[in-house]
Amino acid sequence: MESKNRSHCPVTYALDLIGDKWSLLMLRDIILFDKKYYHEFTQSLEGISTNILANRLAMLEGNGILLKVRDEQDKKRFIYSPTEKGLDLLPVIISMVLWSAKYDADTVAPLDEIKKIEQDPAAFMNKVRSKFSGEKMPDPVAL
Amino acid sequence: MESKNRSHCPVTYALDLIGDKWSLLMLRDIILFDKKYYHEFTQSLEGISTNILANRLAMLEGNGILLKVRDEQDKKRFIYSPTEKGLDLLPVIISMVLWSAKYDADTVAPLDEIKKIEQDPAAFMNKVRSKFSGEKMPDPVAL
Repeated sequence: MESKNRSHCPVTYALDLIGDKWSLLMLRDIILFDKKYYHEFTQSLEGISTNILANRLAMLEGNGILLKVRDEQDKKRFIYSPTEKGLDLLPVIISMVLWSAKYDADTVAPLDEIKKIEQDPAAFMNKVRSKFSGEKMPDPVAL
Repeated sequence: MESKNRSHCPVTYALDLIGDKWSLLMLRDIILFDKKYYHEFTQSLEGISTNILANRLAMLEGNGILLKVRDEQDKKRFIYSPTEKGLDLLPVIISMVLWSAKYDADTVAPLDEIKKIEQDPAAFMNKVRSKFSGEKMPDPVAL
């Protein structure tokens, strides 16, 4: 499932793929909180409906941001992981986190962690990326 | 007009305010392309409807991201400008631009400009900010 691009302005292109209230939250869960399974997203995402969740997962997979592979341990379920294109959205997520930590008086962002990210965002992103670099990337599943 | 926050996770907070297909495009127009007036947004934004435009302008103003002041030269119209909170979204916009320039084969992003931003994002952002730093910030207009 591809999104229709309104234009090829680089802001528009990004917004056409991840400019909604859920896609980056799903990436947050997958990249930062190590979620992998459909049922984990339904539990952790703030009140997402299952049809929106299924739609966004398919969109993110279709646009090469997530990879969906069958779980070898339990063949009835699938594992979602970020592609390189998905991991490259980390700077977008991080810049949102820093902005919210500055402006949301009720933020739950841990301040010592925020300071570390501000001081050296590259180090933080490398640490996050290293969680995925060792993974064998299996062939995508034919649906 | 305030947005209802789903949670105070710093990713969610940002998405609740600017997680849609238009808000960051409007900020792009205002911050990067020097648009100031309502009619300029209707012309430049990729097919935005006037009710969505009016809704998003009110939301961005209500959340302290844009400032709306009466134009002293033409008292029938208003000038929109970014607040400090709005300018602080530049890293979000820039990180989207760099991501799209990398992954959109049809991007219209000028490659020499993109290289400059990649090499020194802080210099680019300072240059953009300097356009607004000299502006006198008038009192908000009572509606």
